Parts: sequence; C-alpha cells; structure tokens
Amino acid sequence: MPPAVMLDHKKVFAENVKAARKALGLSQEALAFAAGIDRTYVSGIERGRRNPSLMLIAKLAEHLDTTPAALLTPPAAEVSP
Amino acid sequence: MPPAVMLDHKKVFAENVKAARKALGLSQEALAFAAGIDRTYVSGIERGRRNPSLMLIAKLAEHLDTTPAALLTPPAAEVSP
Repeated sequence: MPPAVMLDHKKVFAENVKAARKALGLSQEALAFAAGIDRTYVSGIERGRRNPSLMLIAKLAEHLDTTPAALLTPPAAEVSP
Repeated sequence: MPPAVMLDHKKVFAENVKAARKALGLSQEALAFAAGIDRTYVSGIERGRRNPSLMLIAKLAEHLDTTPAALLTPPAAEVSP
C-alpha cells in the first residue's frame, strides 16, 4: 500500500468534490447553500486549502449523492505503483 | 444509495479505527503516540464522540496501515438494504 505521505489527501478530496459537483451540474454556490456552508469554503476545499471535518465530509457527500469514502478515494491514476 | 443520515459516520469511523487498531495489536496509547495526539482523543474517536479532520483521518489511516476511505466505509452489514 503506497505510504499515505505520497498522497495529498486534500488534493484528492478537492478533485473528487469538484468532479462530483460538476457531474451534478451544481455551482459552488448551490453546493455551499445545500450543505449550509459558505461558498468561499467550497472554493477553498476545491483548491485543496481546507481541512474539513468528518461530519462536513459526510454532509458534502450526501449533497453530492456519493459517499464519504468515495470522496477520499484517489482516482486510479494517483495511486503510485 | 442509502441517505447519509441513516449512517452514523462517527460510529462507522469509530468501529473501523478500533478494529484496525486491534488487528495491529496496538493500544490506544500506542496509536495516539504514533499519530501525535492524546490517548483520550483516540478513546473519544472510538466512542464516536469526536469529529476529526481530514488530515487527522489520513494520519490515523497511515498508522493503522489502511486508507482514509477504508476507515469511512461502513462494514457491509451497516448499509441499509
């Protein structure tokens, strides 16, 4: 299993949130409103700048119609051989 | 997909951390020391009382030789039909 230090978890989460949001055709504002957080926080998450809590990860997953685990799973290419 | 509200994510995380820790034969103290947090925080996590951040979830996963996604994945039985 690749050492976690090789993975930038914030970047993984950022990319997954952005992809899921776009797949649903949601704006950052719409996702922020649904999850009860500020749009700038969603923007910060998607730039890999935020360190959200477990419950916020779960709330975002719910509004993105996915699971917390999926949002923390690196896209296949990112898992170093 | 079951509504996230049906899943107690803190409980899922608690059970997964405890199971992974025990599988490695680690005490709460040893895991806390390795992850650089207080033993009482590990105890709180395992009682489903804590709301850890993404980076702490990742650090715990690393020291438990698993992945953040695995720690947030409900055991098969918990996913309501």
